[in-house]
Amino acid sequence: MAISWRQVLVGSPLRTAEHVHQRLTKTKALAIFSSDALSSVAYATEEILLVLVLAGSVAYKLSIPIAFVITGLLVIVSVSYYQTIHGYPSGGGSYIVAHENLGVWPGLVAAAALLIDYVLTVAVSITAGIGAITSAFPELLPWRVHLCLLAILLIVWGNLRGVRESGAVFAMPTYVFLLFFLLLIGGGVLRLAIGSLESVQTPAIPERPGGLEILSIWLVLRAFASGCTAMTGIEAISDGVPAFQKPESDNAGKTLIVMIAILGSMFLGITFLAHTLGVVPVAHESVVSQIGRQVFGGGLLYFALQASTAMILVLAANTAFADFPRLASILARDGYAPRQLANMGDRLVFSNGIAALAILAGVLVVLFRGNTHSLIPLYSVGVFLSFTLSQAGMVCRWYKRQEDGWRLKAAINGLGAVSTGVVLCVVVESKFTHGAWLIMLLIPALVTVFRAVHQHYGDMREQVFLQEGEVIPWSHLKGVRPHKVVVPLASLNRAALAALQFARSVSDDVTAVVVDVDAASTQRLKDSWEAWGVDIPLVALESPYRSVVRPLLAYLEHTDQHASDRGPAIVILPEIVPARWWQNLLHNQTTLQLKAVLLFREAHNGVSRIVINVPYRLHDA
Amino acid sequence: MAISWRQVLVGSPLRTAEHVHQRLTKTKALAIFSSDALSSVAYATEEILLVLVLAGSVAYKLSIPIAFVITGLLVIVSVSYYQTIHGYPSGGGSYIVAHENLGVWPGLVAAAALLIDYVLTVAVSITAGIGAITSAFPELLPWRVHLCLLAILLIVWGNLRGVRESGAVFAMPTYVFLLFFLLLIGGGVLRLAIGSLESVQTPAIPERPGGLEILSIWLVLRAFASGCTAMTGIEAISDGVPAFQKPESDNAGKTLIVMIAILGSMFLGITFLAHTLGVVPVAHESVVSQIGRQVFGGGLLYFALQASTAMILVLAANTAFADFPRLASILARDGYAPRQLANMGDRLVFSNGIAALAILAGVLVVLFRGNTHSLIPLYSVGVFLSFTLSQAGMVCRWYKRQEDGWRLKAAINGLGAVSTGVVLCVVVESKFTHGAWLIMLLIPALVTVFRAVHQHYGDMREQVFLQEGEVIPWSHLKGVRPHKVVVPLASLNRAALAALQFARSVSDDVTAVVVDVDAASTQRLKDSWEAWGVDIPLVALESPYRSVVRPLLAYLEHTDQHASDRGPAIVILPEIVPARWWQNLLHNQTTLQLKAVLLFREAHNGVSRIVINVPYRLHDA
Repeated sequence: MAISWRQVLVGSPLRTAEHVHQRLTKTKALAIFSSDALSSVAYATEEILLVLVLAGSVAYKLSIPIAFVITGLLVIVSVSYYQTIHGYPSGGGSYIVAHENLGVWPGLVAAAALLIDYVLTVAVSITAGIGAITSAFPELLPWRVHLCLLAILLIVWGNLRGVRESGAVFAMPTYVFLLFFLLLIGGGVLRLAIGSLESVQTPAIPERPGGLEILSIWLVLRAFASGCTAMTGIEAISDGVPAFQKPESDNAGKTLIVMIAILGSMFLGITFLAHTLGVVPVAHESVVSQIGRQVFGGGLLYFALQASTAMILVLAANTAFADFPRLASILARDGYAPRQLANMGDRLVFSNGIAALAILAGVLVVLFRGNTHSLIPLYSVGVFLSFTLSQAGMVCRWYKRQEDGWRLKAAINGLGAVSTGVVLCVVVESKFTHGAWLIMLLIPALVTVFRAVHQHYGDMREQVFLQEGEVIPWSHLKGVRPHKVVVPLASLNRAALAALQFARSVSDDVTAVVVDVDAASTQRLKDSWEAWGVDIPLVALESPYRSVVRPLLAYLEHTDQHASDRGPAIVILPEIVPARWWQNLLHNQTTLQLKAVLLFREAHNGVSRIVINVPYRLHDA
Repeated sequence: MAISWRQVLVGSPLRTAEHVHQRLTKTKALAIFSSDALSSVAYATEEILLVLVLAGSVAYKLSIPIAFVITGLLVIVSVSYYQTIHGYPSGGGSYIVAHENLGVWPGLVAAAALLIDYVLTVAVSITAGIGAITSAFPELLPWRVHLCLLAILLIVWGNLRGVRESGAVFAMPTYVFLLFFLLLIGGGVLRLAIGSLESVQTPAIPERPGGLEILSIWLVLRAFASGCTAMTGIEAISDGVPAFQKPESDNAGKTLIVMIAILGSMFLGITFLAHTLGVVPVAHESVVSQIGRQVFGGGLLYFALQASTAMILVLAANTAFADFPRLASILARDGYAPRQLANMGDRLVFSNGIAALAILAGVLVVLFRGNTHSLIPLYSVGVFLSFTLSQAGMVCRWYKRQEDGWRLKAAINGLGAVSTGVVLCVVVESKFTHGAWLIMLLIPALVTVFRAVHQHYGDMREQVFLQEGEVIPWSHLKGVRPHKVVVPLASLNRAALAALQFARSVSDDVTAVVVDVDAASTQRLKDSWEAWGVDIPLVALESPYRSVVRPLLAYLEHTDQHASDRGPAIVILPEIVPARWWQNLLHNQTTLQLKAVLLFREAHNGVSRIVINVPYRLHDA
């Protein structure tokens, strides 16, 4: 039954051999990999205005030049990534590029920054997407955290079905979003040209009154840093090159160019409209929603715009659901993360990574109560840190290889590295107290975890792997049964009997022990021992403090000392296996406790004791 | 280290033999067992006024007669319980009395009602206690849930140290509370007599305006039902008779009389003062706090009153921490609850029951955001249900025994049963939509759980216990080693080697299997098998869908069918035991999964397969 439900929900298992067929066409890849980047136009302009509005209407006009600077930066970084795509046809995420060219530490820093960013991508996109819905239907505002969590579940479901099908599910909404934004910007500009569009009725900003901040270079930099969220997600294509159809790099490169062209023009268009229509950010409605109401007049087109904005934002989270598990699996393969993250599930996706991302993002959404603005300051640090490390890595690569034209290539990536590095400093400096400090703590913490995991797997290999030329004494072991066996029990029943019989079948030296917690029940056990003629010695251990574990441990240590040549005694425990899962709560509590204590306590000589549960299965009456 | 921390916190383990000395003097017993009952005067009057205020100032005057009716009821029920104390010197809680005299089902209903009530006692008392603090310091209001949880932790700590010491810790505050309430009531009455006390400055209630409810018999009954919370906790002494010094029943009976006298006069006194001073319930300050401010003038005495009220209320929760675990252990002993609830801990208290109660009450406090008023409607149903069942049980008992004077005794308990039964109906009817419905659902649900647990333990006994005269074939087993052993592994390392060597030591028929998830690693395993000259057969299992578990299960089933005379094959798994706990996340995921699947799936003939983990311990490098 469990398996058939699974199949209905996520589809039948796929054979390993089917993996290569799961490739994306350019059209589908654009939808999958660009939803993160494109969707940021839904909030980036608003984040710029939110800072500028603090300094009054004079500052407000600066949104246009700031948008142009960001678009210029976008082009520089894209050209840089175009080179990465061709340099790393097998997928050139920041981790791989930094790790290969700059060394282990920069690679791990990039990986940490990326993992954090993927989580934030999900949280920011989902909250902004639900924000688009609550802008249109303010009565849903109290439910926004619930709606966010629902959206995350939906995406998890799509992704567990596998990458090709999620392409099919997600391609359509991306193009619908493009259509409505084209209509919005085109329609807006047209109506402005013929003079049929008026300014939005929002509260006017004072020109330069008291109580506002002074327009400083500092404020402009903060506005710029906030607007840089428009650049999030553009690295997605370079991470995902192997998911493209052959020739992978060419197709990925073309897709990147198309994506940047669309992104740049949409961002400039929205910022222009926001400025010209005099839109001011308010708490309950997004800037795009305000523009939409004005241009479309609040009718069906407006609601379609909001719906498609919500869609693309929710789907933007999907980019992270493709990238986070992939990066986690690469880290796991390299021994920096738990190995189970490298396992592909039934449907050829990294199920554990998908689950981990969903849980972390869900926690963020709940902690920040579904508020996009409070998540934004956390967001850009990781993005620009990984941008910078990735470009710097490419510069090193060109320098080391010294191929034809390497100087130009290195110069392009160098320009990218320097510009994103400068932005990184601006972002950290201007957003530090707003939450960036948290990321500055998290990144070294994550890197420490990566190192500790790596160290541990290394230690394990050293201790567990066999040495070249080692000789295994097989013949020595044949036919030897050297084990001392101890069977703790409380009463003589069928479960105890099964354990005793198994013990007898593997050793001639079996001792049963009872911990004397209750004198009457110990006596009953001794009586039945006689009555049934059990020919195994029974030892009763005193326990004045009613502990079962401590007297038993003392007994085992004592026994081991008297037979140190044979290794620690084996403990065989009777275990009741009930017919239904909840009935487990009613059994084996002492057995569980005993087992945990015995496993984590060394027996002598630094080896662990073997503990065997002999199951006795109950049936429904 | 862990043990020594434990000792500092909860004290050294106590010997079983010390149990009998943990008896309470009457003075200490009054403090322990009466804090619940006495503390209810801190909120009972307020609950009456909260209902009456709905019908204007005319209705408001009814608080005095209602208080007298409740006090009369209190006396009736106490006389009834006095008889129970002498009838059941070994402790006559409602469960025992109802179970013994009315049968299994009424007994379980009483038990369910009591368990729910103990949880509510903790939740109500703690929230009201913290309410006394926030009445005096309104700036603490936002932290009240945190303060409630802190108070619960404090009580848990006291209780885990054991009953005698908790008597010592808790006796003092109860008497301090009595002192300050005596000062409050005495001082208030005195100042009224000499005319130096004025009415409280609270918003006046309209005499009978529109928008208020009509003063109906219905409203009076609701006020009465709310006031009946004053009676909660009076059964505590009859439950705890064996904790008294000898002669137990006499001492317990005397303590009950003293308690009821104090409780009745305090309840009447507070209600009288509230009425005379014209106190009206408000959201941010309790009625007692308002009276206190007026009588004491808001100085040091007032703060001491609030502190002692908070103390007794927080300690009232302590009654439940003595009773809940005791009842749970009785239910466990009778086979209606999980057996681990019957285990006494190091310090001769039922640690599991204490922990369960604390968690449940904590959840309630969080769910109801620390608000006493919203918890009250849930509270009385269970109290009066168990009162009624207990008195009715006593009636049956007298009738069955027909001792001297049984008619009078039966009449007394009968009067108690009928009055509490009537109150129960009133409470259910008038509070149903306010939350009583939840209790009406929970009680049958709990009874169902009790029955299911009982049924399961019964089934288990039938299947597990040996039959009289059964013969155990010991001789047949001696020296026989019939097991087929299967060792699944992924690579040949020291851990795998330890498993293979153990397998060889218990059987001559060992097969190693590898699931071919990755062709290259399977080939490496085969190569090292050759290189190290392992003379155990190695079988590779195909797995096109990358599942490790399914091919292995298929192989085991196939193997078992070909050797059905020997029982299911034993599976021996290598297991890495890391030096630090967090490193477990990095290992044995497949082993765990395999073990769970094998345990819960029957091998053939309805028996479970024996699965043995052979631990290989890692050391810190």
